[in-house]
Amino acid sequence: MTKERELLDTALGKEKADLIIEKGKLVNVYTGEIYKADIAIKGKRIAYIGEVKHTVGPKTQVIDASNKYLLPGFIDAHIHIGGTQLTMTRWAEALLANGTTSVATDLYDIGSVAGVKGIRFSLAEAAEMGLNVLFVLPVIAYMQHNPFGNSGRISEKELFEMLNWPETIGINEPVPDWLINRDETMLRLLDETLRQGKLVVGHASDTLGDRLNAYISLGPSSDHECLSGDEAILKLRLGMEIMMREGSAAVNLVNVVKAITEQKMPSAHFMFCTDERDPVELYELGHLNHTLRKAIRQGLNPVTGVQIATINAARYYRKDHDIGSITPGRLADILLTADLTELDLDYVISKGEIVVENGTYIKPTPKVKYPEFMKCKINLKKPTELKDIAITTDKSKDSVKVRVLHCIDGTLVSERKEAVLRVENGEIQPDASKDVAKMVVLERHRGTGQIGKAFVSGFRLKHGAFAQTYNPVTNNLVVLGTSDDDILSAIKEIQRMGGGFVVVDQGKVLASLPLPILGVLSEQPLETVQKDFKEVLDAIRKLGSPFKSHILSLGFMAMAYGIPTYKLSEYGLVDIDKLELVDLVID
Amino acid sequence: MTKERELLDTALGKEKADLIIEKGKLVNVYTGEIYKADIAIKGKRIAYIGEVKHTVGPKTQVIDASNKYLLPGFIDAHIHIGGTQLTMTRWAEALLANGTTSVATDLYDIGSVAGVKGIRFSLAEAAEMGLNVLFVLPVIAYMQHNPFGNSGRISEKELFEMLNWPETIGINEPVPDWLINRDETMLRLLDETLRQGKLVVGHASDTLGDRLNAYISLGPSSDHECLSGDEAILKLRLGMEIMMREGSAAVNLVNVVKAITEQKMPSAHFMFCTDERDPVELYELGHLNHTLRKAIRQGLNPVTGVQIATINAARYYRKDHDIGSITPGRLADILLTADLTELDLDYVISKGEIVVENGTYIKPTPKVKYPEFMKCKINLKKPTELKDIAITTDKSKDSVKVRVLHCIDGTLVSERKEAVLRVENGEIQPDASKDVAKMVVLERHRGTGQIGKAFVSGFRLKHGAFAQTYNPVTNNLVVLGTSDDDILSAIKEIQRMGGGFVVVDQGKVLASLPLPILGVLSEQPLETVQKDFKEVLDAIRKLGSPFKSHILSLGFMAMAYGIPTYKLSEYGLVDIDKLELVDLVID
Repeated sequence: MTKERELLDTALGKEKADLIIEKGKLVNVYTGEIYKADIAIKGKRIAYIGEVKHTVGPKTQVIDASNKYLLPGFIDAHIHIGGTQLTMTRWAEALLANGTTSVATDLYDIGSVAGVKGIRFSLAEAAEMGLNVLFVLPVIAYMQHNPFGNSGRISEKELFEMLNWPETIGINEPVPDWLINRDETMLRLLDETLRQGKLVVGHASDTLGDRLNAYISLGPSSDHECLSGDEAILKLRLGMEIMMREGSAAVNLVNVVKAITEQKMPSAHFMFCTDERDPVELYELGHLNHTLRKAIRQGLNPVTGVQIATINAARYYRKDHDIGSITPGRLADILLTADLTELDLDYVISKGEIVVENGTYIKPTPKVKYPEFMKCKINLKKPTELKDIAITTDKSKDSVKVRVLHCIDGTLVSERKEAVLRVENGEIQPDASKDVAKMVVLERHRGTGQIGKAFVSGFRLKHGAFAQTYNPVTNNLVVLGTSDDDILSAIKEIQRMGGGFVVVDQGKVLASLPLPILGVLSEQPLETVQKDFKEVLDAIRKLGSPFKSHILSLGFMAMAYGIPTYKLSEYGLVDIDKLELVDLVID
Repeated sequence: MTKERELLDTALGKEKADLIIEKGKLVNVYTGEIYKADIAIKGKRIAYIGEVKHTVGPKTQVIDASNKYLLPGFIDAHIHIGGTQLTMTRWAEALLANGTTSVATDLYDIGSVAGVKGIRFSLAEAAEMGLNVLFVLPVIAYMQHNPFGNSGRISEKELFEMLNWPETIGINEPVPDWLINRDETMLRLLDETLRQGKLVVGHASDTLGDRLNAYISLGPSSDHECLSGDEAILKLRLGMEIMMREGSAAVNLVNVVKAITEQKMPSAHFMFCTDERDPVELYELGHLNHTLRKAIRQGLNPVTGVQIATINAARYYRKDHDIGSITPGRLADILLTADLTELDLDYVISKGEIVVENGTYIKPTPKVKYPEFMKCKINLKKPTELKDIAITTDKSKDSVKVRVLHCIDGTLVSERKEAVLRVENGEIQPDASKDVAKMVVLERHRGTGQIGKAFVSGFRLKHGAFAQTYNPVTNNLVVLGTSDDDILSAIKEIQRMGGGFVVVDQGKVLASLPLPILGVLSEQPLETVQKDFKEVLDAIRKLGSPFKSHILSLGFMAMAYGIPTYKLSEYGLVDIDKLELVDLVID
């Protein structure tokens, strides 16, 4: 029997419902009302709202929702999987446990390593887990085709092919520079996206005035980069819907929500998103349940908050016939909570299946057999030796002045600095006493053997090194260390582990998190991953660095595109403003 | 130069704008604010909002909008062209003059006579005139494939082909019965529509409880059939967006708008529509400018009203990147008015072109050469004779009890009545003294010679007859009269005219409106058409009937599907609930 007939017959009482939720208080996101209503579910979808007795049969399961509110499942309007280091299956498990039943994502982290095949595999994992993925094209993964990108795992041809997939809702965050600088492929992609009636999801960080008008005129219809309520209003006035971001990398909610709570903007054009959420915060704080709770504490009306977390994103992504509300025909993604401000979830129902029961996650997680293309490869051409990571200069010199990439905690924009460093046998030495460490980027996908090297300050590392095979966009092997010996130790250990994060000090491994899937994701559950992740961060802190997230900060320093000023690619130090390589040594 | 580059370069000041609107007060439909802002237009679209001096060049035209409000062009969320009896070109002219720059329509009136070719021809006319058509599939035209429909002008194959057109946004108003009765084609069409991510625009008249849940569960996401605020709220709760209808046939606005003004429902899910607007009302009252004005007089906040008339419909139809607001990249559909409650339009700008200047419509209307398939045909197989329209019974009887289709002014739902009528020589006689007239439906498209006949009350016709080749869906030749002689006269006159409306009394033509395009539309301008139309209605009133719109009322009585109770098809009287033919004579 088709879905249509099942629902039709259940609504008419000819078929019996699989699941009934009775006596609960429905939060109606269309009207803003709260009232008592029962829900009949057939298969994955809602068949009936109201008086459901005629749909109850002998096999119908009943949930008593007395004294509980009924909310639609949450929708994250913009999130990347990579920052959580969980496979899609484990990610879905963790998100569902927190009441997030839908995510808008581009899977660029997976596409940039495993290409279209990897994206298809992950989408299938999500479907198996019952997580709705609102798939938008990973434009960023394609834009690695810049001079200092890496893999070219997604070709131009594939990008346009993916646009035609029926599940592709639009394209994700083309950055303003690409468009304003008239990147041919991007303009053509935008044109084709709009021609197909699909969405252009925007990303307008640091973009105002002429540039903002120009950017919006090309089609982007939303933004998740607002830092304040005023910025949100300015963009909303020009026709961009606003995704209020509260992630691990960028924490904007408290300021942006003022557009609604203080400046009384209509809430219909606002959504919530996390962009990135690291495993520790996902474990300790939760996901959109945390975001919504936090927004309510800022004075947001709870029902308005639920609308922002559900129907608003569903409408923006043109999926309101499918998700975002508790109404007939929609997927049965339903949350039960006793308190509309604390949002502890007693039940989570995902596509008609009870996944959280009495506060406990009960859905069995399938064991996934990952194909070869999903496994981590560290293809370095040849074993790395000390001489490969040395930064050399004229042997006659005792010291040289060098360019230094200065990283700042909490922002992805680096600063251009300089330092005078000691030379030993023609090798320029990092100097922990001056907060100058060495960063190394090893191309790991194609076996080119390319190794970029640079001096980096800001991290305040006193000793040791840490390495990671996950970084935004490139996912190269990136290492930061105070000595070549420790950098080499970290490289060897990460090769032995088969990808992940590792922290070493004087040849000894202090902490590690293996990421055997693509070098980016772990098959372990969130609880394990967050524990290892926390140990890794703690170990780096023991090396002297006070950063909040070293992994994310170092990772972004290896993305040589878009965000100023210096960044390190596999080819060497890049001045992002000029988009060209610069020498380390200043004459 | 592509649209993208033009806008980009204009926003950046490298290109100069074609048109500037300066010093006006912008009604921002995203934020609900009103503030001063200038607008730069390049080609058909808006390039810049705000401080536009850098886009002004020597050839830039400037409109001084001092003391004027700037509104986006209006969007009618559900309208049919047929009821206005104007060709697309003349219709566009009349709508643009009233500030309506976009309409959601299915062109079923054209498709049911001229098929897909006719629809394509009309869409091209609209494009030429600069009217945005949000095209939704004419499901009704297809659903003539019911037992009592007529032409089969759109085949099942064509229906599915049209769904794939890039300009097809969704499908229009499948009626609940078709779905609930499991019409195979309809269920498959719905499924395919949702699979393609397209919209199902609903039509849920007289549908509540189980049936409403069942209907919504299949995908329809809006309704234009609400009669009251309470009904609107009930449907909104179940996830249907509400199109508040104020047309010539159905006048629901005053009641439905209470859902917002009195019951404080969030306005974001409401739109305006007319469904049908006859030429007289279009000429005398206007279009959505009239609807909005009327809503404001009912207590609706004017800015909320503008949102309802613009961005809400644009969002529902997923065209908010294109229309519905004055923001960069959107089509330059902009209205200027000095008064936000009276809404007299000083300027109408359509796709960057000034079409109303200082209150006067100035756009030249092209002379369209209509191909043969757009011309009216009246294919009756053979000349109609008195015996063809007689209703016979047993010659021995003096009188018989008959079924009577009772039509009520202002509703499309008829009542089942009975009457005892005199028999003369075996022919049952209508009886004006009892308000029982005769109605005749002649199939005119395929030359089948089918003629349906029935007795009709409610119109209170004292003498004479009127005939029409336009009716919703079938567009058969339909006549109502008090005597067979006058009915035959009306048929002969309409054949002589080549389609249209005609009123006769004792063989004399009292009034007529020729409709040479399909028998449905006139090439004359609105002013002429409304004058003839009014004369036709006045003439019918002189025959004794007090109805508001006889044409529409009689037309719907010939649509033997969907709306209860009795209707007359070319095959005979149909009981709509059972969907079967019934005898006229009751034993």
